[in-house]
Amino acid sequence: MKVRKFSLEDATMERSPGQSGAIFTGDLVNDRDGAPVTIGYGRWEPFQTLEETMAVDDVMIILTGVLSVTHDEGQVAASAGDIVHMPKGRKVSIRTGSEGATTAYVTYPHWRTA
Amino acid sequence: MKVRKFSLEDATMERSPGQSGAIFTGDLVNDRDGAPVTIGYGRWEPFQTLEETMAVDDVMIILTGVLSVTHDEGQVAASAGDIVHMPKGRKVSIRTGSEGATTAYVTYPHWRTA
Repeated sequence: MKVRKFSLEDATMERSPGQSGAIFTGDLVNDRDGAPVTIGYGRWEPFQTLEETMAVDDVMIILTGVLSVTHDEGQVAASAGDIVHMPKGRKVSIRTGSEGATTAYVTYPHWRTA
Repeated sequence: MKVRKFSLEDATMERSPGQSGAIFTGDLVNDRDGAPVTIGYGRWEPFQTLEETMAVDDVMIILTGVLSVTHDEGQVAASAGDIVHMPKGRKVSIRTGSEGATTAYVTYPHWRTA
C-alpha cells in the first residue's frame, strides 16, 4: 500500500446501504487495498436519522455541521473538529439538524466487503 | 466500551515520543479502553519536521493548517478536511509550514502501549 491523500471530492458518494435517508458514504480505502481499516467520507443531509447497532468500531470525525448521537447512556452533540467513537456492539441513533453534516470515518474491521 | 465524543480540549497533549520537535499528541482512546484502535489529536507547530517509518497504519485527518507528507513515491499536501493514510512499513517525512496544523488520528493497531 502507498501513502495516499484524499479530499471529499475524491469519494464517490452513495446512499448508505440498508437505509432510505439522505445519508451518503464514500469509501476511499477498504479491504480491496489490503488495508486493515476502511477510510471514507460521509455526507448527511439536514434532518436525517440513522439507527444502527454497530457491527464494527466506527470513528467519525465531524468536518462540518452537527451530529447528535443518542446511545444507551445518553446523548452527545458533535460539531466540526469533534470525534465520536462508536464501539462494536453499541446501539446508536444518529441525527442531523438544519445544517446537515460531513464526516470522515475510519472503521475497524471493514464495515462491509468491497 | 461506551459511545464517546471528544473535542481537542479533552486531550492531554504531550511531546510525541522519540522526537524533539514541537509536535504534540494526545491519545483519547487506546488499548487501556479495550479498543482495537488508538484515537487522538495531534498539534504541530509551524516549520516542524517528523521523519518516521510507520510501525502501524496511521490515518490523519487534517483539522486546521497544512501538512506536507513526502514518501517514496512523491509528496502530498493536505489541508483542512483532507485525509492522509500512511500504511504500516512506509517511510514518511511530515512537515508543517507557517501555519502549523492540528489533526485527528486513528491508528491500527495501537501505535504505543498506554
